[in-house]
Amino acid sequence: MEKEYVVGVDVGGQTAKIGVVNRRGEILCQKSIDSKYGKGEADKFVKALCSTIRELVKKIGLESVNGIGIGAPDGNFYKGTIEDASNLQWAKGIIVPFAEMISKELGGVKTVVTNDANAAAMGEMTYGAAKGMKDFIMITLGTGVGSGIVIGGNVVYGHDGFAGELGHTCAVRTNGRECGCGKKGCLEAYTSATGVARTAKEWMVNSLKPSILRDIKGDITSKDIYDAAEKGDKMAIEIFEYTGRILGEKFADFVAFSAPEAIVLFGGLAHASKYIMKSLTDAMNENLISLWKGKVKIITSALKESDAAILGASALAW
Amino acid sequence: MEKEYVVGVDVGGQTAKIGVVNRRGEILCQKSIDSKYGKGEADKFVKALCSTIRELVKKIGLESVNGIGIGAPDGNFYKGTIEDASNLQWAKGIIVPFAEMISKELGGVKTVVTNDANAAAMGEMTYGAAKGMKDFIMITLGTGVGSGIVIGGNVVYGHDGFAGELGHTCAVRTNGRECGCGKKGCLEAYTSATGVARTAKEWMVNSLKPSILRDIKGDITSKDIYDAAEKGDKMAIEIFEYTGRILGEKFADFVAFSAPEAIVLFGGLAHASKYIMKSLTDAMNENLISLWKGKVKIITSALKESDAAILGASALAW
Repeated sequence: MEKEYVVGVDVGGQTAKIGVVNRRGEILCQKSIDSKYGKGEADKFVKALCSTIRELVKKIGLESVNGIGIGAPDGNFYKGTIEDASNLQWAKGIIVPFAEMISKELGGVKTVVTNDANAAAMGEMTYGAAKGMKDFIMITLGTGVGSGIVIGGNVVYGHDGFAGELGHTCAVRTNGRECGCGKKGCLEAYTSATGVARTAKEWMVNSLKPSILRDIKGDITSKDIYDAAEKGDKMAIEIFEYTGRILGEKFADFVAFSAPEAIVLFGGLAHASKYIMKSLTDAMNENLISLWKGKVKIITSALKESDAAILGASALAW
Repeated sequence: MEKEYVVGVDVGGQTAKIGVVNRRGEILCQKSIDSKYGKGEADKFVKALCSTIRELVKKIGLESVNGIGIGAPDGNFYKGTIEDASNLQWAKGIIVPFAEMISKELGGVKTVVTNDANAAAMGEMTYGAAKGMKDFIMITLGTGVGSGIVIGGNVVYGHDGFAGELGHTCAVRTNGRECGCGKKGCLEAYTSATGVARTAKEWMVNSLKPSILRDIKGDITSKDIYDAAEKGDKMAIEIFEYTGRILGEKFADFVAFSAPEAIVLFGGLAHASKYIMKSLTDAMNENLISLWKGKVKIITSALKESDAAILGASALAW
């Protein structure tokens, strides 16, 4: 009986979401824990994660599970490692043997790791908006910008297991913003949740236009900008349009690479799709060669945000 | 006996190369014909091509061949068509049912079409520098800039058969040069043979530096620039370094997509690799996230130029 369950784990920059999943893709129980551990604290995080897994497994009356699938930034499918993840302090600049550590802590249970965006793509392909598609690209717009690329029905891992780092392709070549990865001008520096917040801060310095964003005390977040847009704030709406434009320009490059049927938007910023979609689609089509103009679908995830990543990660474990 | 031979055809912007190939990948005889036919003259070109195929087949004492494989710009593997090829006047803005036309003309022989760069990648994987590799990108630097992407040992065709148009990804976002495809700033507009010649013309206007290129009467070609570089001309060498830099910046984006083991340079400009390689590799590594820095090989094709495309195309036909 306990062979019928796996655990899916979605490790994000702020939290890790853990769920127990059955064969039908139903999440039986789930929980979020803090993932913001510091340098050298990978071990502490693994202990907290495993303790939560034990707790959830026990909660539904199981003794063990068939396997654990993990989606994590810079997760390596081939090696089971998390390698130099710029958004995880405990995995920055080092190689963390994550699958091995968890498996050891949990008495040898089979543990598989992949890029969090690859996991989300698997979830979307199995249960979501990309159901039935063989060629699509998943773009996750969260704390960072990740990507899961599916070609011919298979997730692309590449030579070393790290394929699909589209958040670190170059969006702005000249005087680009510094990115968490150490480079400049990355797509992530403009179109992640933090990137959008940086745009707001930049615009408020460079422009004198009125905006209710100016009334916000403390650090502006992408949520603040969304709320302002909802109230009709012109600058907030323009920030999302600018973000959409940068995404669309790069999406055209991605289409030229793998000719996908669709690009699926996922993550926090995908909720602002009503503000970014038009400029994104326009910019993409302007930058596509004629054979693709108007032919590539941009869709938003059909899965509940926490579910997609957990389900995708769990699919690895079967 | 005649079942043991196929025909490989490489359609370029200037010429088409045709070869009869045996199972061991030996080209038994080959010939080049003009491919510069005008608007509405696809039929004429097909007739000339088929006449040459008949001539070659007859020459080695065969009655027929097992199949014909064709590499052509904007060739569609799924449909057997050439669709809106900006470098072929007879296929610009229209869909040419190329495989069907040739098969009909030659009494029903099986005919397969793919992108010329995909064909070259197949040739390189089977017989050349990418032998044994499962993940690599072939970049063809000729009249245009093409690409053949291999992931997990398979050529990437994408949803519609047109994947791998990396020559039309954006190299220069602001005030980019017009490209033959109708867009601006494409990689092809800077790093094809004609792109390099355009750089020379631009630099001679913008700079007052001396160069033996200024003595050339008539239109400057990439060959002239190569010859000048060989004579130690500083501007000519800098033109290649600039070309390498633009390639390297974009290669970093391509690596972030599919994490290839190597990028293989092919075509006329690859002969100038001694002038472009350092700036290319430096620019690529500067633009890669740390996990790939210094790890992606840039190599030049190991096959004779005409052979790779013919062999690759022929591999389709078996």
